[in-house]
Amino acid sequence: MGEAVVRLDPANVVGPLPRRLFGSFVEHLGRCVYTGIYEPDHPAADALGFRTDVAELVRELGPTTVRYPGGNFVSGYRWEDGVGPRERRPVRFDAAWQTVETNQVGTDDFVDWARGVGVEPMLAVNLGTRGVTEALDLLEYCNGRPGTALADQRAANGHREPHDVRIWCLGNEMDGPWQLGHKTAEEYARLAEETARAMRRLDGSLELVACGSSNRAMPTFGVWERTVLDRCFELVDHISAHAYYEPVDGDVDSFLASSEDMHRFIDGVVATADHLAAVRRSDKRITVSFDEWNVWFQQRSSDGGAIGGDDQVSVYDVTDAVVVGSLLITLLQHADRVAAACQAQLVNLLGPISTRPGGPAWRQSIFHPFALTSRYARGTVLRPLVRSDRIETTRYGPVDQLVATATLDSETAQIAVFAVNRSRTAELALTLDVAPPLPGQAAPAQYRLAEHVTVHDDDPGAHNTEQEPDRVVARPGSSSVRGRVLRAVLPPASWHCIRLAPVEPS
Amino acid sequence: MGEAVVRLDPANVVGPLPRRLFGSFVEHLGRCVYTGIYEPDHPAADALGFRTDVAELVRELGPTTVRYPGGNFVSGYRWEDGVGPRERRPVRFDAAWQTVETNQVGTDDFVDWARGVGVEPMLAVNLGTRGVTEALDLLEYCNGRPGTALADQRAANGHREPHDVRIWCLGNEMDGPWQLGHKTAEEYARLAEETARAMRRLDGSLELVACGSSNRAMPTFGVWERTVLDRCFELVDHISAHAYYEPVDGDVDSFLASSEDMHRFIDGVVATADHLAAVRRSDKRITVSFDEWNVWFQQRSSDGGAIGGDDQVSVYDVTDAVVVGSLLITLLQHADRVAAACQAQLVNLLGPISTRPGGPAWRQSIFHPFALTSRYARGTVLRPLVRSDRIETTRYGPVDQLVATATLDSETAQIAVFAVNRSRTAELALTLDVAPPLPGQAAPAQYRLAEHVTVHDDDPGAHNTEQEPDRVVARPGSSSVRGRVLRAVLPPASWHCIRLAPVEPS
Amino acid sequence: MGEAVVRLDPANVVGPLPRRLFGSFVEHLGRCVYTGIYEPDHPAADALGFRTDVAELVRELGPTTVRYPGGNFVSGYRWEDGVGPRERRPVRFDAAWQTVETNQVGTDDFVDWARGVGVEPMLAVNLGTRGVTEALDLLEYCNGRPGTALADQRAANGHREPHDVRIWCLGNEMDGPWQLGHKTAEEYARLAEETARAMRRLDGSLELVACGSSNRAMPTFGVWERTVLDRCFELVDHISAHAYYEPVDGDVDSFLASSEDMHRFIDGVVATADHLAAVRRSDKRITVSFDEWNVWFQQRSSDGGAIGGDDQVSVYDVTDAVVVGSLLITLLQHADRVAAACQAQLVNLLGPISTRPGGPAWRQSIFHPFALTSRYARGTVLRPLVRSDRIETTRYGPVDQLVATATLDSETAQIAVFAVNRSRTAELALTLDVAPPLPGQAAPAQYRLAEHVTVHDDDPGAHNTEQEPDRVVARPGSSSVRGRVLRAVLPPASWHCIRLAPVEPS
Repeated sequence: MGEAVVRLDPANVVGPLPRRLFGSFVEHLGRCVYTGIYEPDHPAADALGFRTDVAELVRELGPTTVRYPGGNFVSGYRWEDGVGPRERRPVRFDAAWQTVETNQVGTDDFVDWARGVGVEPMLAVNLGTRGVTEALDLLEYCNGRPGTALADQRAANGHREPHDVRIWCLGNEMDGPWQLGHKTAEEYARLAEETARAMRRLDGSLELVACGSSNRAMPTFGVWERTVLDRCFELVDHISAHAYYEPVDGDVDSFLASSEDMHRFIDGVVATADHLAAVRRSDKRITVSFDEWNVWFQQRSSDGGAIGGDDQVSVYDVTDAVVVGSLLITLLQHADRVAAACQAQLVNLLGPISTRPGGPAWRQSIFHPFALTSRYARGTVLRPLVRSDRIETTRYGPVDQLVATATLDSETAQIAVFAVNRSRTAELALTLDVAPPLPGQAAPAQYRLAEHVTVHDDDPGAHNTEQEPDRVVARPGSSSVRGRVLRAVLPPASWHCIRLAPVEPS
Repeated sequence: MGEAVVRLDPANVVGPLPRRLFGSFVEHLGRCVYTGIYEPDHPAADALGFRTDVAELVRELGPTTVRYPGGNFVSGYRWEDGVGPRERRPVRFDAAWQTVETNQVGTDDFVDWARGVGVEPMLAVNLGTRGVTEALDLLEYCNGRPGTALADQRAANGHREPHDVRIWCLGNEMDGPWQLGHKTAEEYARLAEETARAMRRLDGSLELVACGSSNRAMPTFGVWERTVLDRCFELVDHISAHAYYEPVDGDVDSFLASSEDMHRFIDGVVATADHLAAVRRSDKRITVSFDEWNVWFQQRSSDGGAIGGDDQVSVYDVTDAVVVGSLLITLLQHADRVAAACQAQLVNLLGPISTRPGGPAWRQSIFHPFALTSRYARGTVLRPLVRSDRIETTRYGPVDQLVATATLDSETAQIAVFAVNRSRTAELALTLDVAPPLPGQAAPAQYRLAEHVTVHDDDPGAHNTEQEPDRVVARPGSSSVRGRVLRAVLPPASWHCIRLAPVEPS
Repeated sequence: MGEAVVRLDPANVVGPLPRRLFGSFVEHLGRCVYTGIYEPDHPAADALGFRTDVAELVRELGPTTVRYPGGNFVSGYRWEDGVGPRERRPVRFDAAWQTVETNQVGTDDFVDWARGVGVEPMLAVNLGTRGVTEALDLLEYCNGRPGTALADQRAANGHREPHDVRIWCLGNEMDGPWQLGHKTAEEYARLAEETARAMRRLDGSLELVACGSSNRAMPTFGVWERTVLDRCFELVDHISAHAYYEPVDGDVDSFLASSEDMHRFIDGVVATADHLAAVRRSDKRITVSFDEWNVWFQQRSSDGGAIGGDDQVSVYDVTDAVVVGSLLITLLQHADRVAAACQAQLVNLLGPISTRPGGPAWRQSIFHPFALTSRYARGTVLRPLVRSDRIETTRYGPVDQLVATATLDSETAQIAVFAVNRSRTAELALTLDVAPPLPGQAAPAQYRLAEHVTVHDDDPGAHNTEQEPDRVVARPGSSSVRGRVLRAVLPPASWHCIRLAPVEPS
């Protein structure tokens, strides 16, 4: 059994938690949109054609922001195709995913849906096959006040009030040779610069996300960000990062340590941005929009592996859920420099929610750590001091067996601890204490366990299906709290959410 | 009299003959389209408005592939203007040729015509004033299966079945400052790369032609090809070359040796492509699409020279026909690395076929070597060993008096020899033998003369006119065949097609 | 049994055979110089200290040109150290090979030795730690006429007559990071350009060799040559190539096909040079100096493999000899573009000749194909048409089982055929015919077998040692010649030299 000791100190903080960390992503890909969130013939469809059973699960999942409409899809997308009367919308060949797009769902529809499920829309403009003009047009269509042609067109399409979309992505993965209209760093930097400048003319208060690297292994990683931010430093707020993780060649131990890669990725981008700030003697801090991340079995699916089936629906197991939980912990640990993040994607192909056309919707294993983190991570992100045993991985060398973060809700004085035991084989004895308050500051003298839930299974390959949708859920964990000290034993490959509540002096 | 000895060895081959070597070109230029192939008011017009008398001559000429719609024209062309009901098509100013384009002939019309005369269409996309999106749109319009808007638009325009165009030019002469939307090598390389990648998303089996040099004297020659292919090496199949020849300052001797330039042009482009293959350690071999070539009196017409008249109709004489024949021989000699070629252009201004509006159509002198080579060059191109007397030229130094190639049709065992005597003054005594078969291989023991035709005239300036359309034709030549040896005397400045047939053992 | 049919046609030629193809290499490395060619205390030493027994073997081996003094050695070499009275020459640390250099042999000594054994010296200047000045000084010392200080110094050192060295290497392997004073392509291109220009001021008729790639797997391959030749195109005659072959991970089948790599290497360099010629519209053809090539057990020695012993002496077996023979065939096949080649190295470490200090000298297996090719390849290199069965290799895919070339000596009308059966397991039935002469040309009507010798052994690992120096020699092969047809059966993994002599009409 491994050991880890953690100190939480309310005075040792990363910063306020940006709620946009719990974003998700709806792309026109696979069955995410059609027969995912939208299926007008479904018994549970609402008047607009959206599935209310899916919407219910989305509300439970608790994403804060949802990116749309892509992904690679956006780089060939003509937004005009997706607005106006549905019967007049053209069917297009989608060259990004080499499929047919009916355009029955478009920008207005998505915003309606997003508002309905209580999430903030985050839109991307097409900088692959299009440029400044079309970005301006879409922005005006979405956010313009009635009185100009495009805003009036929106009004005529049933949305008199502006959509008021606050955060915009300047294209998608433009560093990737697979992208329609792929660009060199310098080409993209110029296009992003001019697009950002023009969009700010319409609305100076927008938050703009420049494209960063599609993953940390891109040959242009780092140099791309430097080139782009050198042109756009004053014009954008965020730079994107994307990452998908999977066991490579069966190396599950390294897979369980995937957050090491995400950690280095974020640190590398932050250093790059701060290098440019230094060059400018600027105090501006560019933040990261980690707007695509998840477990994705790119290798497994090409291998035709055992788990799977319908290729439009992911099948995630307990190990995947533990990795997803650890990636969320990593995002929280970097809450001072990651301003937004989007799990990709919300429904079906890569999603925590699955559906059958005409049939039910259910939760994948990865649904649970996301939903619980989004629900209970509140207030201020603390910076735990961790002393953990180390375990060996092929890909990352020795890594901490424990990954942990915590938040403190100053209104309730509740603390939420999120922790993962990365070992596939060894239990982990966790001892955590909360430091006493600084002199002169009030703090609870004692805590009690409010709740401990865990995602774990003796069969790490356990997963949910339509027939057995609750095979994997979050179950009660066991831990004890005495005074300011929590003790727990974390089983191998397990994720935990442990909440401490102050004991009121009696 | 000069002398040349030629050995043909069926074991010594260049490779299979790519039939696309005998391509032609229809551009919206001069009277090539309107009152050329298309003239709805003409007595010989068919239901679609195309001249059946011209179509008949095209079939006789025997082009295999016809490039369309330009040429410089394509760099300002909007393909949408040319489809749909003719009465709704806009009249546009054509900035490339500074004329007015009625759009009465467009893509669908051309493809109909091409299929009707039995040639393969080769289309160019506009990368001058347009980009990736419009290239994708045109491709989808042409090749898309019904079910998307653009394919459905084609169907609505009367073509339910996809046109299935296999070979596409990525713009035209983008290295030329005269080109609308002319680009630097790096600019074009990037645009061609992204366009090719996107087009392959729609159809991975397309053959794509990147723009090479507009002629070998371009200041960017070589570096242009390197820059373009360095970006597009894996994405394209062919790189284009264009060349027009004429007597410069009256130097007819060099003009008769024009194939020397074509030969060096091809070799230079091949070396450039193979240099990039070497850098990549790749076995891929980029091939040349010599998609504009011909005799063109650019100097003569600007001089207002003696021959000519109507500037919309070329007047080619016997010398021109001999040069055209020698250029075809050169293309055959490089059949392993030239995959396609287009004589520019099919009708009138630069064409082997001439017409009078409302009047007849007739064959220019250059019609004959093209028609005979296309008809009789079959099977495998042989690599003759030539030992020829040399003649002096101002432009190319000493050159072989004889230019020759041959093909072997394995089905019939017939051999077709194509030969030119380049001297303006000296006859050429030709001795050609066919090497015996390799041990253990079957081959005819003896040959007989199947046919010998020649284009030659005591007046090298002889040419055809509407009034005298058959002043220059291919006439019987004289040669003798004994056993495996052919002997002939080739008059000065003459082109020959000599066919040998096996003598059946009696 | 495999089959191959070969046609030789005296009219089908590569070109005249450049005798410099049969060059060798003496570097200050291992025991090549000291106790190799030079050993003053040896019983067979001549007055200058050179071993006459080794010299005798060198004469028998028949190299035409010998490169000196390196190799890596030259990049730290001060030529002044090696001239003048031996007792005054400094002992230096040789940083290239991390050993001690006594300088008892230097330029004058080497040239004396070379003239004595009848070979042409090919010298390299140091462009690693030195530059233009020292190159000019060495050139003046070697080739200057008395009357200037350096030429007078040479005269004072006993050589009044200039050495008249015609061919010079501009440094050695400057692309290799291991090289003292390694340079980027652009750095070397500039230095070579200025050095070449300066050297030509002293003697415009020198032949100069620019450094190419150290092997085809160098990351800069192709781009290096382009960069260098782009600067030096008009100033140099040749560009170097180096390659060493060995069985990698025991893959002897691919090892036997090593000439495929050499073939692609030469083609790639030629394409690069001709690309630059195309850019310049130049008819100049840069040729290759393949001035280091051989079998070298870099992997085997680092593995401490079975064959070996004294690591200062290679032990080559029959398979190695067959590969060496096939590499010589490849050089001959490219005789139009490879102007010089040097087997590396002449004596001991990598050499066809081995010695024991104070003891005898003997021939390695690879001695025999070199000696016989150098002796019998004469006149014009023919371009055989080969139709061979194919065999599979891991590294090169399917390759011809037969590799063959031939030369025709027009004085004697003798034909020498050099052939290798690359298969380790299958015999090869070879049928070769000589095409009849062109009409009107004289040629022998019939041939007889003048001699057939082969290097082959039922034990492909057979090799020579001091104790058994003639275990592997060239032995009579068997073939029959009737009329113009040769038939032979080539055993597995065998090299052959088959000479045909004309039958005088009786």
